[in-house]
Amino acid sequence: MTEKFVDLGFAKLDISRHNRTGLNETVFCAGKTPSQLLKILQTFQQQNRAVLGTKCSREKYEYVTAAGVAAKYDEVSGLIFLDNGVTPQALAGTAAVCTGGTADIPIAEEAARTIEFLGGKVERYYDVGVAGLHRLLDKLEDIRRADVIVAAAGMEGALGSVLGGLVEAPVIAVPTSVGYGASFGGLAALLTMLNSCAEGISVVNIDNGYGAGVLACKILKMAGKKL
Amino acid sequence: MTEKFVDLGFAKLDISRHNRTGLNETVFCAGKTPSQLLKILQTFQQQNRAVLGTKCSREKYEYVTAAGVAAKYDEVSGLIFLDNGVTPQALAGTAAVCTGGTADIPIAEEAARTIEFLGGKVERYYDVGVAGLHRLLDKLEDIRRADVIVAAAGMEGALGSVLGGLVEAPVIAVPTSVGYGASFGGLAALLTMLNSCAEGISVVNIDNGYGAGVLACKILKMAGKKL
Amino acid sequence: MTEKFVDLGFAKLDISRHNRTGLNETVFCAGKTPSQLLKILQTFQQQNRAVLGTKCSREKYEYVTAAGVAAKYDEVSGLIFLDNGVTPQALAGTAAVCTGGTADIPIAEEAARTIEFLGGKVERYYDVGVAGLHRLLDKLEDIRRADVIVAAAGMEGALGSVLGGLVEAPVIAVPTSVGYGASFGGLAALLTMLNSCAEGISVVNIDNGYGAGVLACKILKMAGKKL
Amino acid sequence: MTEKFVDLGFAKLDISRHNRTGLNETVFCAGKTPSQLLKILQTFQQQNRAVLGTKCSREKYEYVTAAGVAAKYDEVSGLIFLDNGVTPQALAGTAAVCTGGTADIPIAEEAARTIEFLGGKVERYYDVGVAGLHRLLDKLEDIRRADVIVAAAGMEGALGSVLGGLVEAPVIAVPTSVGYGASFGGLAALLTMLNSCAEGISVVNIDNGYGAGVLACKILKMAGKKL
Amino acid sequence: MTEKFVDLGFAKLDISRHNRTGLNETVFCAGKTPSQLLKILQTFQQQNRAVLGTKCSREKYEYVTAAGVAAKYDEVSGLIFLDNGVTPQALAGTAAVCTGGTADIPIAEEAARTIEFLGGKVERYYDVGVAGLHRLLDKLEDIRRADVIVAAAGMEGALGSVLGGLVEAPVIAVPTSVGYGASFGGLAALLTMLNSCAEGISVVNIDNGYGAGVLACKILKMAGKKL
Amino acid sequence: MTEKFVDLGFAKLDISRHNRTGLNETVFCAGKTPSQLLKILQTFQQQNRAVLGTKCSREKYEYVTAAGVAAKYDEVSGLIFLDNGVTPQALAGTAAVCTGGTADIPIAEEAARTIEFLGGKVERYYDVGVAGLHRLLDKLEDIRRADVIVAAAGMEGALGSVLGGLVEAPVIAVPTSVGYGASFGGLAALLTMLNSCAEGISVVNIDNGYGAGVLACKILKMAGKKL
Amino acid sequence: MTEKFVDLGFAKLDISRHNRTGLNETVFCAGKTPSQLLKILQTFQQQNRAVLGTKCSREKYEYVTAAGVAAKYDEVSGLIFLDNGVTPQALAGTAAVCTGGTADIPIAEEAARTIEFLGGKVERYYDVGVAGLHRLLDKLEDIRRADVIVAAAGMEGALGSVLGGLVEAPVIAVPTSVGYGASFGGLAALLTMLNSCAEGISVVNIDNGYGAGVLACKILKMAGKKL
Amino acid sequence: MTEKFVDLGFAKLDISRHNRTGLNETVFCAGKTPSQLLKILQTFQQQNRAVLGTKCSREKYEYVTAAGVAAKYDEVSGLIFLDNGVTPQALAGTAAVCTGGTADIPIAEEAARTIEFLGGKVERYYDVGVAGLHRLLDKLEDIRRADVIVAAAGMEGALGSVLGGLVEAPVIAVPTSVGYGASFGGLAALLTMLNSCAEGISVVNIDNGYGAGVLACKILKMAGKKL
Repeated sequence: MTEKFVDLGFAKLDISRHNRTGLNETVFCAGKTPSQLLKILQTFQQQNRAVLGTKCSREKYEYVTAAGVAAKYDEVSGLIFLDNGVTPQALAGTAAVCTGGTADIPIAEEAARTIEFLGGKVERYYDVGVAGLHRLLDKLEDIRRADVIVAAAGMEGALGSVLGGLVEAPVIAVPTSVGYGASFGGLAALLTMLNSCAEGISVVNIDNGYGAGVLACKILKMAGKKL
Repeated sequence: MTEKFVDLGFAKLDISRHNRTGLNETVFCAGKTPSQLLKILQTFQQQNRAVLGTKCSREKYEYVTAAGVAAKYDEVSGLIFLDNGVTPQALAGTAAVCTGGTADIPIAEEAARTIEFLGGKVERYYDVGVAGLHRLLDKLEDIRRADVIVAAAGMEGALGSVLGGLVEAPVIAVPTSVGYGASFGGLAALLTMLNSCAEGISVVNIDNGYGAGVLACKILKMAGKKL
Repeated sequence: MTEKFVDLGFAKLDISRHNRTGLNETVFCAGKTPSQLLKILQTFQQQNRAVLGTKCSREKYEYVTAAGVAAKYDEVSGLIFLDNGVTPQALAGTAAVCTGGTADIPIAEEAARTIEFLGGKVERYYDVGVAGLHRLLDKLEDIRRADVIVAAAGMEGALGSVLGGLVEAPVIAVPTSVGYGASFGGLAALLTMLNSCAEGISVVNIDNGYGAGVLACKILKMAGKKL
Repeated sequence: MTEKFVDLGFAKLDISRHNRTGLNETVFCAGKTPSQLLKILQTFQQQNRAVLGTKCSREKYEYVTAAGVAAKYDEVSGLIFLDNGVTPQALAGTAAVCTGGTADIPIAEEAARTIEFLGGKVERYYDVGVAGLHRLLDKLEDIRRADVIVAAAGMEGALGSVLGGLVEAPVIAVPTSVGYGASFGGLAALLTMLNSCAEGISVVNIDNGYGAGVLACKILKMAGKKL
Repeated sequence: MTEKFVDLGFAKLDISRHNRTGLNETVFCAGKTPSQLLKILQTFQQQNRAVLGTKCSREKYEYVTAAGVAAKYDEVSGLIFLDNGVTPQALAGTAAVCTGGTADIPIAEEAARTIEFLGGKVERYYDVGVAGLHRLLDKLEDIRRADVIVAAAGMEGALGSVLGGLVEAPVIAVPTSVGYGASFGGLAALLTMLNSCAEGISVVNIDNGYGAGVLACKILKMAGKKL
Repeated sequence: MTEKFVDLGFAKLDISRHNRTGLNETVFCAGKTPSQLLKILQTFQQQNRAVLGTKCSREKYEYVTAAGVAAKYDEVSGLIFLDNGVTPQALAGTAAVCTGGTADIPIAEEAARTIEFLGGKVERYYDVGVAGLHRLLDKLEDIRRADVIVAAAGMEGALGSVLGGLVEAPVIAVPTSVGYGASFGGLAALLTMLNSCAEGISVVNIDNGYGAGVLACKILKMAGKKL
Repeated sequence: MTEKFVDLGFAKLDISRHNRTGLNETVFCAGKTPSQLLKILQTFQQQNRAVLGTKCSREKYEYVTAAGVAAKYDEVSGLIFLDNGVTPQALAGTAAVCTGGTADIPIAEEAARTIEFLGGKVERYYDVGVAGLHRLLDKLEDIRRADVIVAAAGMEGALGSVLGGLVEAPVIAVPTSVGYGASFGGLAALLTMLNSCAEGISVVNIDNGYGAGVLACKILKMAGKKL
Repeated sequence: MTEKFVDLGFAKLDISRHNRTGLNETVFCAGKTPSQLLKILQTFQQQNRAVLGTKCSREKYEYVTAAGVAAKYDEVSGLIFLDNGVTPQALAGTAAVCTGGTADIPIAEEAARTIEFLGGKVERYYDVGVAGLHRLLDKLEDIRRADVIVAAAGMEGALGSVLGGLVEAPVIAVPTSVGYGASFGGLAALLTMLNSCAEGISVVNIDNGYGAGVLACKILKMAGKKL
């Protein structure tokens, strides 16, 4: 246990995570004040480390860039990127990122851009939900060529099950909070995905596009392994 | 309000329901003692009225037939039938009764046999769930010819949504309690069906095959109406 | 599977839905940005297709009309209509749309105006909830003449059960999120309706007036069928 | 605070409850071993105090009577009575105890027999649920003459709301665990009753017929008060 | 069934409720638009009927008085009163209205002022929750003299149970949504009150001070009855 | 990190837990087969270590003693004790273990006997729930002399709150699954205790008498510390 | 869509699943009658296809083998194997299957034996839960060498999070229903795993060891891909 | 029962709490109006008593100080302090206050500053959650020296379990509402902590840093006791 971290008092930046897990530390921006976020990003900037921030508001992004942090921002997904000029090692293979509807795109983009930030290649298939199954079947041959599939869907969340029965690659199902009434903030989609009768479907937290992206990359990395 | 009922004290048999709703009284057997069920069926038998009993155990069925009630029983669905020689008026059209899996058959049979008892015609499509979508697509043209569709499914219950996007007839979705873990006794399938992104899907209670059957017949009756 | 769709990237407009399901594509506005909604409506306008948008805010309506979309808007129900001069084929029969209270009217209007947009005839019976049962009984003969009944109610949602025991037509129960405390955003009314002891009641999602309207039209269409 | 109790170690019998609350101690039998129940009842017998036991199995009843306790038992309600020759003071007025269906009778009897044990007069109206509203309306004038009303109902539990809008007396609504699927062990009926849009409805725990009976007696006692 | 109502289209004013239930119609203001509320109150004003409105915002109150409705308003409870010069018949006896804490006062005032509007007499005992039991015990003799008791409490809601074991009068427990975390909007207090081990406790919906007030008056009216 | 464990394959016995946490390993018997339990206890017996087993059925106890394990058993609490002749170091101070009712005793005994097994002194105060507050007040001076208090209660679980406002010692509240209906297997009592308005109350899992006992001992150990 | 299936009426055996998803059909035994299971297995036996059955009781296993099906059975996991002499293609790499406690082993074995049936290599690390972290750290270097990790845990289910922060391979977290009280049948562990603050953790349904095993194999197959 | 309180009508200030429980009254500011808070604090100021207010907004703080109350405020924790020059008696020993992440700091500070206000000594260990276990292990020897440990964590809340298996001191686990999706406002962390497989963990309400602080002080006070 010789790993190290940078202790800022209010945060302990886990700079050895890459050694342990192959991933850099990520910053969950939603629960931090602008000044806390600034100090964290400045520290990573000084260390020339690439870092990703999730669930970041435009206000926080503007606050940190005004203070000199060279970050980029994607408004759709709420991701903030500080690459510090580091180019990630390219991952082999392709991830297909699909959504049930248009309203699921912010979470899908959180997954897709996380994958790209980590060196993966993404193809997007948006609005292919089960209410119009032919849209999905029309794209099926393309999707089947992907090496891992992310399926983000709200409301009843059936996209994951349907895809799971049609493809060979692992499917990562992301329930989204899109819906109303008895969707209960994404609970309906979450339960659908957990109870999928198709095999080999993996589920992450509601609206956790970032987690789906990381998992997709972990799976893509398998391809390069000599076993 | 001139309707009548037979007052047995512990039960008030609603013999005017047919006039009000076009349906006979039905007996929910699960909550009644064998002797209560016997007295109710004897009364209907004396009045030469057809009656259906739901959620009936074999023990109760044997108890009432031993006491002279001329009932029939279907073990799969738990339905008990006392037709008293009454032939229901035949309904036009056909109901397709579908299940996601084999384990949903008891509830599907509760729907199918209720429809048949009420004079409807049923076609059965069992085990056509979304894990093997080609099984459903293979039967789709047949199912599309039905005038009303009952879709019983447990686990993630996606069958209703998928069917809803592929057919013109009304779809009655019946969540079943088949599953385990986070299916929570059918709650997952219920929420899936309520949140369906396909339009015009109707939902009944978990395991309520009887209610789905009645609703299907109410819809089939529309076909004979002169509007 | 020869159906077609228009691929906008962020959305795949399902222009073959009418062929499959007898219904046009509908746009769920709540989850889309104003510019996404605009591009979708412009596409439908160019194709001279009628389309309905649900859960639409006044701001989005004003945004799209300012950009030249010839849509109409109903503030009470949050529906946006783009008829493109298409007159729907008139449906035979009548739908009775009822509410338990005044606060349920927005959802009832979502159902009623959906039915009218799809060519159906609607009669409205508002504020006939069970706290003053004589109001319902006073209108009962009129309601019984309807061919399908929509019952929207919040709080305890008993209207569906009571109606279900008094009429012959199918009843579509819509739980609304009206209420407070242990109504839990409409959950109480939803459970009431699912557990109705009256037969043949069909339930849709909380606040899903649109879904109830579509289902009502699917049932009305049965009347014209030659079986 | 000069009240007294009998300390048996595992139980502290509250023999001063009558002074404080006008009610005798009651024994919740479900959570006690047969020998604990025996010792409690023997103590009350020695003190010549009347006591009621709730949720008592036939096995426990037989155990205590075999050991010489002069108790009586009602199998339907699971109540065990040890009156010790004490005749309760008769309460003025009448309680109407109603049920939605036959399956709710055990809980209704728990209420009715509790009221009778405490000196009240009961009229029973069973199986008058809203699926056949005319049965309730037929009995309405009788029920309206009661001074307090207990309404026990499972499934959707709408009986309380409907009664509440039709009578002047206070209504005590008792949700029962009768039902299946999304009744969730009585939760649906409980929420219905709590959210009743009729005023002045009082709710007790699921299956708590005893509590309803006690509350009814507390209300009946008001009639004799000189205010 | 000869009762009457005033049909405003969006509302059916139940002017015969007093004959049926001894209570006037009440208006649930939260779910109505200002103009709907205005039309309802104007109608009652023209008929010289007293009416109470619940969960009313100051904005709605100002809107209706600006339009000439002679209503009064209580900001703490959100009640709006239109007495039309009608003096309610005084009820015998006294209601004690208690709260666990200061934050429960708005709901307690909703109960207290409802009772007063209906002709009852109220004594207030605020902030007597179980964290400082001596405060309650100090007032106990006074509270015991009341003929009916309303106990409003949030957080763990134990006040109802504790009072129920100490008094003879019926206790109406009102869970409030005061609290945070695992109080889940009043659910914790609601469950506490429903599960009370003290007998004869009656529960109403979370934050339903009005319902508690009406129930208290129904019980107080018992005192004047000749049985 | 030099601790050690005994690896049985299906179990890794944590024989260094005492060094880390001051406590021995405990065996959760409910999830183990009889033969697994036997092998675990034999291993501890060979090592002459004292060990406690929780939630143990009589069948498992008889199985292991028949195979030569010198364990003792308490049927009320379901605890199995293997002391191996080790006498625990006596703890200073006293724990008061209280219950709301008689039915809570099994869980209270699980706490009490755990404390005694770990060297603590226990005083029992059973059936002192809030329905008869004088029973608690009668014992209050004794309870106040305890150094730590365990309060086990089901149903509404108010005992913890009431005690918390009356004593100086830390209160460990144990919700029990005693109750029915809306107690939801102890959830009601759990929420009550978590939302207690009295300060300094600590809560453990439903029916976790063992955890309460361990926590009580950890607190009693504080008394001997030189700080 | 040229796939085929065998239609048994009550079941449609998906014999083309291997072509679509790389996996054979699996039989969920819990929801099938013994005779249904027999007919399904006989059909697969006649076709010389390997098939796996999950959640199978010993009774069903004995029923089908008595009728001549050459299946094998593992009592711990409830899996039934019909390999028909088919040897699966060996998968490269290794899966580490870990449990928090001994009681999680049946679900872990369901995962492990599924992996082995599908040609994968498994290493087992049982009882390495976080209550004794040194047990996990002791095995960490071994676990880190695995290519995919299955972590089955009940109670609080923290094993997944802790592992996720320590390893590079993808972690598949399986919540189990082991626990009591507020574990709510595995819900606590499920929520823990979904909310993990460690990245790249994938979750399956409660007690779904089979699904975890299939997902592990899908990931292991990545290793052989040429991308 | 000779304790006293100050009766302000809307509040009864519990000035004898210190005698009963060793703690001063605390004011829950969230549910009080600014003027109610002012009157309460003025009363305590006149009596020269130290008082703490929780969940206080900056607006309320400014309102009361503008009116002359000599309070101090901590924006991070939302605590308001009125010490009236009273210095608390210093407690022996040290409390370690830990958080899983940076976003949990406000609740941790509520605990830490409560402890300090009551005379305790605090050491802070922030952002030591299980995603980077080495951060916790790095600080472990320091944390183990503390006499009581507060562990505040949101998301999956595993910090409490992990700490519980590594230390001897009692651990007070505080679930926080930090997280999204299936964290359900802190419910996931709460369930994790309640189900901890490590022994002797105590849980308080979600976001109840104050309660954790008080409990920590009650435990620290044990150290000074002569037993």
